[in-house]
Amino acid sequence: MDFYRFSAPYLCHMSNTITRPKVGILGGGQLGRMLLQAAANYPVETFILENDSECPAAHLCHHFIKGDIKDFDAVYSFGKNLDAITIEIENINIEALEKLESEGKNIFPKPSVLKTIKNKIFQKQYYKEHQIPTSDFKITNHYSEIAELEDHLPAVHKLGEGGYDGRGVQIINTKVDIDKGFDKPSVLEKLVMIDKEIAISIAINEKNETAIYPPVMMVVDPELNLLNYQLCPAELTQQILWKIEAVALAVVRNFKSPGIFAVELFIDRTGGVFVNETAPRVHNSGHHTIEAHYCSQFDMLWRVILGYPLGNTKPIMPSLMLNIIGADGYSGNVVYEGLDEVLKIENAFVHIYGKKQTKPGRKMGHITLLSSEKQDLLHKAGKIKRSLIVKSA
Amino acid sequence: MDFYRFSAPYLCHMSNTITRPKVGILGGGQLGRMLLQAAANYPVETFILENDSECPAAHLCHHFIKGDIKDFDAVYSFGKNLDAITIEIENINIEALEKLESEGKNIFPKPSVLKTIKNKIFQKQYYKEHQIPTSDFKITNHYSEIAELEDHLPAVHKLGEGGYDGRGVQIINTKVDIDKGFDKPSVLEKLVMIDKEIAISIAINEKNETAIYPPVMMVVDPELNLLNYQLCPAELTQQILWKIEAVALAVVRNFKSPGIFAVELFIDRTGGVFVNETAPRVHNSGHHTIEAHYCSQFDMLWRVILGYPLGNTKPIMPSLMLNIIGADGYSGNVVYEGLDEVLKIENAFVHIYGKKQTKPGRKMGHITLLSSEKQDLLHKAGKIKRSLIVKSA
Repeated sequence: MDFYRFSAPYLCHMSNTITRPKVGILGGGQLGRMLLQAAANYPVETFILENDSECPAAHLCHHFIKGDIKDFDAVYSFGKNLDAITIEIENINIEALEKLESEGKNIFPKPSVLKTIKNKIFQKQYYKEHQIPTSDFKITNHYSEIAELEDHLPAVHKLGEGGYDGRGVQIINTKVDIDKGFDKPSVLEKLVMIDKEIAISIAINEKNETAIYPPVMMVVDPELNLLNYQLCPAELTQQILWKIEAVALAVVRNFKSPGIFAVELFIDRTGGVFVNETAPRVHNSGHHTIEAHYCSQFDMLWRVILGYPLGNTKPIMPSLMLNIIGADGYSGNVVYEGLDEVLKIENAFVHIYGKKQTKPGRKMGHITLLSSEKQDLLHKAGKIKRSLIVKSA
Repeated sequence: MDFYRFSAPYLCHMSNTITRPKVGILGGGQLGRMLLQAAANYPVETFILENDSECPAAHLCHHFIKGDIKDFDAVYSFGKNLDAITIEIENINIEALEKLESEGKNIFPKPSVLKTIKNKIFQKQYYKEHQIPTSDFKITNHYSEIAELEDHLPAVHKLGEGGYDGRGVQIINTKVDIDKGFDKPSVLEKLVMIDKEIAISIAINEKNETAIYPPVMMVVDPELNLLNYQLCPAELTQQILWKIEAVALAVVRNFKSPGIFAVELFIDRTGGVFVNETAPRVHNSGHHTIEAHYCSQFDMLWRVILGYPLGNTKPIMPSLMLNIIGADGYSGNVVYEGLDEVLKIENAFVHIYGKKQTKPGRKMGHITLLSSEKQDLLHKAGKIKRSLIVKSA
């Protein structure tokens, strides 16, 4: 009995009419690129909307449309002949997606979720409303208001809208720092004494079935020269693991939207769990799932979009993921020095995103290591740190 | 010390000049498609030459060039601005590749190998010359000559050139069948009493380093309604495994060409090993390596082409691979019935090749199953056989 055929209302399941659904992705960065690598396993016609025609995803789709994902007309006309739309970045025109949704298009995630998440004030209010543990916060319209909130310090001041990639966030330790804050609607979040930084990805489909990946742990290792990497599975007690899963499920289910979500959490020194932020899409913290898990986050999102059963989130093996970052002092046409050394390492999987230009701190790729031994993962990560340098020609 | 930089003469290793080599693939079918999925992990600019602009690989490359891979001018002008060229099908213009090679282009495999393999007479002579076990054979120019070779029957008559996909091959059991044979240069191969049908893939790089995948076994299972599938690893004694590896290594090394090779062998009831044919490229028998092995055959070929160290051929888990074939009685726009049922199965990985038209027997995709239990693999394969039908709309 083809159970799914009747309950999932769209796309492949309308198999008599749509044999190869048209699915668009807003944004053409590395997340789009890896989504398209996975898409080639399924009967789907792919579309990318993106201003940069040399972006990482441009050459891997059936149809590349040059246009501004923040522009209403560009997004609306991109979407109006598609069967479904997803995103690889939140900074897109939500109004156009709302109009497309009202006209019957399937959007992953729903525009209502994007509205909540795009504004950090709304996002915090969402957590509060659903009794999801998150650090205490106050809303400010101007940094001068922080003076009245001294018992709330040390805190993080986050711009409600427009912050991205580290911009729009300031640490306010004491009153002295207040004028570092923002003069637009912002949220002042009490600083959590972070013991562990965790991310967990959950997929949810139209039937509200969920698939939970094991949590990953961000690590900054002083011995490896301040190398940032991510370990999976995170080292957690059973009790904290259950808490994280429950909290993240509450975040995802209350959005009432199919899609895939990466929930970022802090664990403090007392074992308290606090949701930091949620990304309503495939996410950097899920890159390791390509090789380290049976079903990758990218495959999983296609399963959700195309109405297929959810995949297997179990790990094949423990993994370590590290981003390949443009080295300081180099800007211009990229050269990867030491890639050979990395590819000599057993079970080191390299993903270069195809960006032509490097600059300091730019994410140019990532590497996933698989090993059953944590010490082996760390040893190999250290070797990579010493071997691979992203320079310019 | 970057050892590879000095010994591998080309491409990425000329890192000061070529930061993103241009690599072309002759042919745009499913093998090209899967090569391109893997290519997106590396800094490489991809080109496809193919007559069908809606072929499986067309939308996944940087540059699609419409043209006939059998035409000298098309292949030569395609290749002359590239750094390296590979193939996904043997039926291409070898003379153009020879000219390109003489002008310094790197071809994987070398044109000399393609010349040997493309003609079944030359291929048999190659095995004989290198003392590689293969079934006894005689060369014929006309089927009437078989009358004089009665002690050679039962045999397989194979057309030297031009046979493809089952055409150009005839079984000659007795003298009665002689006029089924060919009237052009052909090879008459003594029939092997096949106990097992095996394929083994081996990659070899410019430094003559090799990476050997575990052999796979083709199975026709009467209980599963004559379902054809492939098991990995093949069930072999240690002694026969060693024999197969030695024989396949001899096949590959004597070609004196970097690339990846799939050697197909028969094992007879006495444990004798006979090379049947060699494919000098990624191959249907290696599809399972995408999910079931740490380094896939597609990733491996890129490592060879780009001059990177070879990858890890070990299996993650035993696997079963089966092709998705167009059902009898259906021709036209393809519809996949029962894909949901397949995707419900834990660790069933679906690859649909994106061919718009189905016809009886056409390879439309494949499925790889992973499980540590053989019975579980067989059970799931049977379920797929009952669920999935490739129809036309």
